[in-house]
Amino acid sequence: MRTAIYPGSFDPLTNGHLDVLERASKLFDRVIVAIALNESKNPLFTLDERLALMKSGIARMKNVKADVFEGLLVEYAAKQKAQAIVRGLRAVSDFEFEFQMALMNRKLDQKIETIFMMPKETYTFISSRIVKEIARLGGDVSPFVPPHVETALKKKLK
Amino acid sequence: MRTAIYPGSFDPLTNGHLDVLERASKLFDRVIVAIALNESKNPLFTLDERLALMKSGIARMKNVKADVFEGLLVEYAAKQKAQAIVRGLRAVSDFEFEFQMALMNRKLDQKIETIFMMPKETYTFISSRIVKEIARLGGDVSPFVPPHVETALKKKLK
Amino acid sequence: MRTAIYPGSFDPLTNGHLDVLERASKLFDRVIVAIALNESKNPLFTLDERLALMKSGIARMKNVKADVFEGLLVEYAAKQKAQAIVRGLRAVSDFEFEFQMALMNRKLDQKIETIFMMPKETYTFISSRIVKEIARLGGDVSPFVPPHVETALKKKLK
Amino acid sequence: MRTAIYPGSFDPLTNGHLDVLERASKLFDRVIVAIALNESKNPLFTLDERLALMKSGIARMKNVKADVFEGLLVEYAAKQKAQAIVRGLRAVSDFEFEFQMALMNRKLDQKIETIFMMPKETYTFISSRIVKEIARLGGDVSPFVPPHVETALKKKLK
Amino acid sequence: MRTAIYPGSFDPLTNGHLDVLERASKLFDRVIVAIALNESKNPLFTLDERLALMKSGIARMKNVKADVFEGLLVEYAAKQKAQAIVRGLRAVSDFEFEFQMALMNRKLDQKIETIFMMPKETYTFISSRIVKEIARLGGDVSPFVPPHVETALKKKLK
Amino acid sequence: MRTAIYPGSFDPLTNGHLDVLERASKLFDRVIVAIALNESKNPLFTLDERLALMKSGIARMKNVKADVFEGLLVEYAAKQKAQAIVRGLRAVSDFEFEFQMALMNRKLDQKIETIFMMPKETYTFISSRIVKEIARLGGDVSPFVPPHVETALKKKLK
Repeated sequence: MRTAIYPGSFDPLTNGHLDVLERASKLFDRVIVAIALNESKNPLFTLDERLALMKSGIARMKNVKADVFEGLLVEYAAKQKAQAIVRGLRAVSDFEFEFQMALMNRKLDQKIETIFMMPKETYTFISSRIVKEIARLGGDVSPFVPPHVETALKKKLK
Repeated sequence: MRTAIYPGSFDPLTNGHLDVLERASKLFDRVIVAIALNESKNPLFTLDERLALMKSGIARMKNVKADVFEGLLVEYAAKQKAQAIVRGLRAVSDFEFEFQMALMNRKLDQKIETIFMMPKETYTFISSRIVKEIARLGGDVSPFVPPHVETALKKKLK
Repeated sequence: MRTAIYPGSFDPLTNGHLDVLERASKLFDRVIVAIALNESKNPLFTLDERLALMKSGIARMKNVKADVFEGLLVEYAAKQKAQAIVRGLRAVSDFEFEFQMALMNRKLDQKIETIFMMPKETYTFISSRIVKEIARLGGDVSPFVPPHVETALKKKLK
Repeated sequence: MRTAIYPGSFDPLTNGHLDVLERASKLFDRVIVAIALNESKNPLFTLDERLALMKSGIARMKNVKADVFEGLLVEYAAKQKAQAIVRGLRAVSDFEFEFQMALMNRKLDQKIETIFMMPKETYTFISSRIVKEIARLGGDVSPFVPPHVETALKKKLK
Repeated sequence: MRTAIYPGSFDPLTNGHLDVLERASKLFDRVIVAIALNESKNPLFTLDERLALMKSGIARMKNVKADVFEGLLVEYAAKQKAQAIVRGLRAVSDFEFEFQMALMNRKLDQKIETIFMMPKETYTFISSRIVKEIARLGGDVSPFVPPHVETALKKKLK
Repeated sequence: MRTAIYPGSFDPLTNGHLDVLERASKLFDRVIVAIALNESKNPLFTLDERLALMKSGIARMKNVKADVFEGLLVEYAAKQKAQAIVRGLRAVSDFEFEFQMALMNRKLDQKIETIFMMPKETYTFISSRIVKEIARLGGDVSPFVPPHVETALKKKLK
């Protein structure tokens, strides 16, 4: 059985994340979404909220489950007996940072491979950060996030 | 009549901004410099100060006026009946971020087009952030900003 | 009256070109598609064929006309009394080359400004070169070019 | 059973290719190296030679086999019932071209996913093109290619 | 006598820094490591601690000495009668920022040249920021920093 | 005595090359311009012509001399007892290719270091290729090359 980890802050979950997840779920027997605690980043949603939003989002994907983690990603991945870490690539700037992280993770644990996947091109400009900014300014985020995340954003930012 | 919006924080106005503005003023009937409130970025100059510095800077350009805005840029642009948003491009890293913002703005309002223009090559390394840092360290910023901005920087950082 | 030049080889015209043209036609009074002779690039279609394909493609755009040119672009633009050269930007690699050409053109003629526009994101991966390669390999190019160009490609590559 | 295609010219096979292949072979049940005919690129080694060099190179990898293909990659992948195309990423310039090809391939066949993997960092600067140039100039290519490829290069370039 | 300045925060010193320093020390008669105060960046180690860690790290390099500086780098370099500023380049994103800083420094003082050097490829993914993050998460940083820095990190983060 | 090699095709010499050379000549005791034979690139000027144009161009620089080379650059550099290879960096795309070449050269000979320098920003868009294209189209190349190269271009392209 091959397992992949899809790590991130997911603050909040976007349609871009779901698109990558769906693609990854077809290439692996099991995909675990690993939500990072990331307290230093001062997230808008609590870890519990992010986990709940993710669980609703992935309900229809049979071989995908959501979890939270703290500490080093490679240690979490090893504990889950994962063979791969999946990352979405949208732009050149993504690429460089992701590349450095992947090389670092390989140095920390050679048995776990990072693979990069592309979201649908209409999602390449979506990021959690931009979605939050638009929501804060009162813009319509319905093209960028699933309905239950839109609702949660409105409630949180009221 | 064709109107373009040139948005930014302008904290403070640089010679690079003025160069792009002058170029844009020749392609459109009217150009509106739209200064963003940007409280979260903790600007050095207040919104009023940035507006005043801009007004002095553009005094010689007949079809350019300065304004402030809050909220979504595309909503402001629609209210001004603008056809275009103008952005200066200096480097690859600019390009990627600007591209994402432009695609996002297009999604939010399809009727407004973003166009990119190049400042003079001697201005490609100037940014408000670097100008402020040099001024803070006591360096000479006269090649990078107009004289009235230099004076304002000295006064502010005394 | 403001005139923009949209230069290229257009070997052949793609949906990406048409998308940029349509956007440019809204910002200028007149847009001239300037097809470069480019004999050294050994084009698939002759200059006359490329011109004919372009004329069919832009028939519905009132203020756009097609022309051919030889020699320096800035000299052609000056003859047409154009204020701007329009270029589509799709990727970072585009950006760098286009930037160099634009700076060079500005050095050759300071009165003509280059502006960059973004095609629809679903067109960012389309290029004439890739379209020709797919057509040569017998692939379906209908999502990437208008129907009359698809027909011309099939005829040419038979 | 999950199958991945690893396409390329492999003119000739390098240690970088073998590194990516080894990593891919752990994530998929079956990996097929698909050597493109690429006559237009005027390869140094014939298709048969490239296939033979590849077969020796992958002899130790149980679930990897080598094949040749002509025509569209996605059609070949579909015939092989592959779920994924694997590509190695070394640099930003790779990234952009690969991204465009991957988006194009997705448009041609939505069922096949492209994934990107990183070679070992000591292989990031190796390419078949540079290896051939060094061999032509009489340099030592033994750190960059397996021994049987080094021998073949010497024989070919004598 | 030719002198080069190697400036940075060095919070903390990494093997990548030492690698660049060793290379620079062979090209210049004297290399001065100039540690920036950088209070605004809220460094993990104090200026004194960073200086002490650096002094231990460079003990074996005869023509390298460590110093601290405040204010404009070019003024410090002029005071030291340096001809060059040395910077390590690891990635495209480095390149752009470094390029802008170098052009700015040249504008501030034309007599000082910035030169860029490459660390060993196995160090291209190491940065002080990532090293601190791994140390905070309890990971092994011994491949990335010299032993005395590893000890200092453990003590500081306990 | 420290020696640097500045390699290239110089087909033909541009003001950008001269600018980098002048900067390098201040950092090293001796700089050797090494003109590559490059027959496969089908140069416009013969090796002898390129050498003659270079010799005129560097006449005023006391510690710079011009030479030609064939074969591996690192072998030539070793024969000249050089410590460094100097390369000009203008853009991100330069950076990536140059980086790969530098890593490759380091693998071939660890004793020779590649350093990168920046031309004046007004020269960042100049390349021999673009200069030749402008000259072919009858444009004015006087801002981009020294007068004797302009004369040679006119004569050659008549």
